Amino acid sequence: MKKILLGHGSGGRLTHDLIKNLFLKNLRNAYLSNLDDSAILRIGNQEVVFTTDSYVVNPLFFPGGDIGKLSICGTVNDLSVCGAEPLYIAVSVIMEEGLDMALLGRVVSSIKKAAHNAGVKIVTGDTKVVEKGMCDKLFITTSGIGVKSRKTNLSLDRVKKGDRIIVSGAIGEHGVCILSSREGLNITSRVRSDCASVNSLVAGILKAGGIVKFMRDPTRGGLATTLNEFVDGRRFGIVLDEERIPVSSGVKGICELLGFDPLYMANEGRVVMIVSKKGADKVLKMMRRHPQARGAHIIGECVGDYKGKVCLNTSAGGLRLVKMLEGEQLPRIC
Amino acid sequence: MKKILLGHGSGGRLTHDLIKNLFLKNLRNAYLSNLDDSAILRIGNQEVVFTTDSYVVNPLFFPGGDIGKLSICGTVNDLSVCGAEPLYIAVSVIMEEGLDMALLGRVVSSIKKAAHNAGVKIVTGDTKVVEKGMCDKLFITTSGIGVKSRKTNLSLDRVKKGDRIIVSGAIGEHGVCILSSREGLNITSRVRSDCASVNSLVAGILKAGGIVKFMRDPTRGGLATTLNEFVDGRRFGIVLDEERIPVSSGVKGICELLGFDPLYMANEGRVVMIVSKKGADKVLKMMRRHPQARGAHIIGECVGDYKGKVCLNTSAGGLRLVKMLEGEQLPRIC
Repeated sequence: MKKILLGHGSGGRLTHDLIKNLFLKNLRNAYLSNLDDSAILRIGNQEVVFTTDSYVVNPLFFPGGDIGKLSICGTVNDLSVCGAEPLYIAVSVIMEEGLDMALLGRVVSSIKKAAHNAGVKIVTGDTKVVEKGMCDKLFITTSGIGVKSRKTNLSLDRVKKGDRIIVSGAIGEHGVCILSSREGLNITSRVRSDCASVNSLVAGILKAGGIVKFMRDPTRGGLATTLNEFVDGRRFGIVLDEERIPVSSGVKGICELLGFDPLYMANEGRVVMIVSKKGADKVLKMMRRHPQARGAHIIGECVGDYKGKVCLNTSAGGLRLVKMLEGEQLPRIC
Repeated sequence: MKKILLGHGSGGRLTHDLIKNLFLKNLRNAYLSNLDDSAILRIGNQEVVFTTDSYVVNPLFFPGGDIGKLSICGTVNDLSVCGAEPLYIAVSVIMEEGLDMALLGRVVSSIKKAAHNAGVKIVTGDTKVVEKGMCDKLFITTSGIGVKSRKTNLSLDRVKKGDRIIVSGAIGEHGVCILSSREGLNITSRVRSDCASVNSLVAGILKAGGIVKFMRDPTRGGLATTLNEFVDGRRFGIVLDEERIPVSSGVKGICELLGFDPLYMANEGRVVMIVSKKGADKVLKMMRRHPQARGAHIIGECVGDYKGKVCLNTSAGGLRLVKMLEGEQLPRIC
């Protein structure tokens, strides 16, 4: 592969290959090698979690959010799923010459509101401007710092056969929302993005203690890609029950119409976690009490067979392999 | 102003106005209000410095550096001039579809080398791809974390009449290098960018103790803009001696030819500091022992007159006001 393809930004297989073969190969160290969205650093007497993400979503505004809200929620969520309390955010914007100042104002207002809602502070930033035609309106990069309690031990090393997979709500809503908002697609759709900060939800669940073993936010590449990251190189596999995976009728309809699979559509306000078999019902009850997770479901379990693989018990009664996203499903989803 | 102009990215007056009137107005908090490049956070028993910058430099490669080296040095320098030891860097890249993979490889190698030289670790990152024509090849956003000793007290509040201004070397080399490297300009120039990490230089100087009162790296907007930031709203002014300001013959020549002023040209490996009158010679000697600061000079002093202003004793014998950069001198310098 001699050129960067859109698929290198998909969050799926090509992104993983690019990071492994180019970035990791050059920059290898103990922090980077886990290929995670965040790094856990020891600073003084604290475990500090550090993360960064660039946002290039198109369109800038969509039902349920905009690039400003997305950039805050995304970084808050990357910190939260590591078990950290998100505290401080840095915001760097790259703007195209001629960008409407009122539009920028709406985005900054949205950043303000999202930061307020998540209880994080924007503490530093940067602004750059490039000539007209040299970027698409507005890109935002957010970086975040959170602090992790040493009591919280979220690790895939703790996963056992029989552990349950729980997702906090219906999947694919952000992806389908962006798809149907995109210029040129004439779909009348009521699907809103699930874009939200999950820190209050996660903090509540972590009170359940050690029965929660690991969690992530299934963004680019969707639930399928995140679960494949869970099992990659591990001594367990995951078997999902298609009938239990929550998918709204709106998402189902548009995916069927356009030939997309909700398992690969991005989420921006969902959490997927591995919980001990014993504790799964307790965690599910706790989650459903939270307004963001009323639609939570136990969707599958960890198994000793199919090591390193994700399989799906289909509604039709078959068992199919669910791979990581290959190529690009939908560019600039976030 | 209804639209974003290139000048909003200059680092000068328009950038300050945009940040004050839009970003700060919405996001105001104690960290942001000092309008600094970095935030100083208290985490556990440590003072942690946090910074972010996006890099959109054009061209990507230039004599003395490239966007990769620049993105690491810039973030290392923002942390260093706050008195912090730079430790961890997050790198987020936005790439244009079709970007040459070998070119990307050269940039990543350069990131590796710059991080190694500065003794910092790249601990996390992100990659995004946008469609061809939707960004100009490659933008990089770096964020950094450093730790500050509580003994180091760098503050403009400590500045007094008679304090000296020291610059670590010849000014304007990065700006002139980019200017003369830019496509379409047929200047044969031997000016190399001064792009470098200043953390070892700064750490050495800080051993001088309390006689060093404040320092910054004069990047976008040049020395003139940085010194104006020093005096902004303060009860002191700065008077510079034009004859003492180090400017290489290459920079002088190109600036004269094209009508630019070296005082406004960006630097990417220089430090300008305020030092007590008594300690100035000691600091100057310490600096000149460091390979990066052999060309250091005392270039002026803080005065009780001209409060909030920067003035220049010109070679011709006059005194002229040196304002912050107005408008845009050269887009995409960093």
